[in-house]
Amino acid sequence: MFKKVVIAGVGLMGGSLGMAMVKGNMATEVVGVDPDRENLKQAVRMGAVHRAADLAEALPGTDLLILATPIGVTLGVLEMAIPYLTPGTIITDIGSVKGRLVERAEAMLPSNVHFVGGHPMAGLELTGVVGAREDLFEGAAYIITPTPLTNPTALERIKGLIEKLGAKPIELGYLEHDGVVAFISHLPHLLAATLVNTIANEPEKELLLNMAAGGFRDTTRIAASNSLMWRDILLTNREMVLQAITRFRSQLEEMEKFIKDFNAVELVKILNHAKGLRESLPENRVYMNKCQEKNQRGK
Amino acid sequence: MFKKVVIAGVGLMGGSLGMAMVKGNMATEVVGVDPDRENLKQAVRMGAVHRAADLAEALPGTDLLILATPIGVTLGVLEMAIPYLTPGTIITDIGSVKGRLVERAEAMLPSNVHFVGGHPMAGLELTGVVGAREDLFEGAAYIITPTPLTNPTALERIKGLIEKLGAKPIELGYLEHDGVVAFISHLPHLLAATLVNTIANEPEKELLLNMAAGGFRDTTRIAASNSLMWRDILLTNREMVLQAITRFRSQLEEMEKFIKDFNAVELVKILNHAKGLRESLPENRVYMNKCQEKNQRGK
Repeated sequence: MFKKVVIAGVGLMGGSLGMAMVKGNMATEVVGVDPDRENLKQAVRMGAVHRAADLAEALPGTDLLILATPIGVTLGVLEMAIPYLTPGTIITDIGSVKGRLVERAEAMLPSNVHFVGGHPMAGLELTGVVGAREDLFEGAAYIITPTPLTNPTALERIKGLIEKLGAKPIELGYLEHDGVVAFISHLPHLLAATLVNTIANEPEKELLLNMAAGGFRDTTRIAASNSLMWRDILLTNREMVLQAITRFRSQLEEMEKFIKDFNAVELVKILNHAKGLRESLPENRVYMNKCQEKNQRGK
Repeated sequence: MFKKVVIAGVGLMGGSLGMAMVKGNMATEVVGVDPDRENLKQAVRMGAVHRAADLAEALPGTDLLILATPIGVTLGVLEMAIPYLTPGTIITDIGSVKGRLVERAEAMLPSNVHFVGGHPMAGLELTGVVGAREDLFEGAAYIITPTPLTNPTALERIKGLIEKLGAKPIELGYLEHDGVVAFISHLPHLLAATLVNTIANEPEKELLLNMAAGGFRDTTRIAASNSLMWRDILLTNREMVLQAITRFRSQLEEMEKFIKDFNAVELVKILNHAKGLRESLPENRVYMNKCQEKNQRGK
């Protein structure tokens, strides 16, 4: 249980966190901060926060600050917040890339406030608080990235919050986290966008898009996500993403070689390998959030 | 309306065609031929065909032969069928690659039987008649690939059948067809398999698979399809598939270069381009079959 919680950035993620905390009585007061006035008003109307405020006004006396801003501005918001922080404040974030943020936060923050990096593995192809839902984190994996400098009490309180949200806290090193998401989130995203663009560049583009069936739709669904957010994610996790592209390309070259050489034996071997692994996934419900599970069951 | 229809290969596609024809009274008699005795019995039990028979026994007096066999054996089955064909028989197939089949069929068939290549753009990640459903083709695009040698009456009757199935007949040249499916079906499939294998080859494979969220699941869903069928599709459509891989790779290199160069302007441009195109897809309901539409609405 927290007394005063400030959520900086009340979008889909910040709004869903706020809604879950307000409705679940996890805090006495949840204050929302957001540069988009309309979005902030909507957050209050929806009950995602108790009230709206300015960052400098909201921060004094806060015991938990949640940075739920777009990844490109999180460090800037944190820097702005420093003068207004009360000793003992716990700070966490929800960003998709952790390395640089965790290192910089530990370097710039005074030792009497406590940072714990976080990344809930849940999301929807929506932006803004209007898409927020209190059950967004139920059943989802929620990665936290403590370091040797992390305050143990702050870490325990964040883990407790995650469990109250119905999510599953998973501790990973911040570099390990960035490697994981480069492969399972950033690489799939950039491949989906690349596949759509490949088709868009063909002269018979209209015909191709008109014929696109279920497989193409599934494979490219995530290409419809927020472009600015994805630009920032890909550039912030640049090293790891480039490494993932390199590994992917070498697998693609192998596939291409087997097709070129009419190597039916090796080709079916790699297709089978992929099939087996993909089939082993859907059972793994513990890491699927409630919305995704509903979708899955609907099929 | 056909009198006697023979379906060679009563799997998911052949079975669904049979079921729609039996239940929709599109033929007096639908006869199923399949080397898998259990599957064939099941087809009769499910009402996907009126009765089971051997190819040589079934063919005489047939006015429509539907080749719904795996792509690797279709030409062999057609060759076997020739001695038993009655003059006037119309022959069609449902294969995902048309070039070689159409050329060979026109070269080997006597001039008094009439071949029309077909490819319904519908399917499920299932095999065997047990997954068959009479509404599989409702609302789906159904490509047919007539040539200057195609008998006009046979073409009209096949188009009529497709419309009775609730599908939308679309005429394409057979090479044009193979180019289209290389980009919108075969490329997405091989990329999904390659993405799964990329992750499977990482040392922290278990961690990566455990963390895999919705984006990864969507992008790789089709990697769980039948490996032998896909091996045959990729090798049969080899030239076009290799061309599609080359185009994809050059798009991927562009994406990689923008990330390497921290080129935020160009990166957001290509992400936006993909987003716009992907968003323009789901409205295009005319090419989505009923099951896919149900899934879409379930979300």
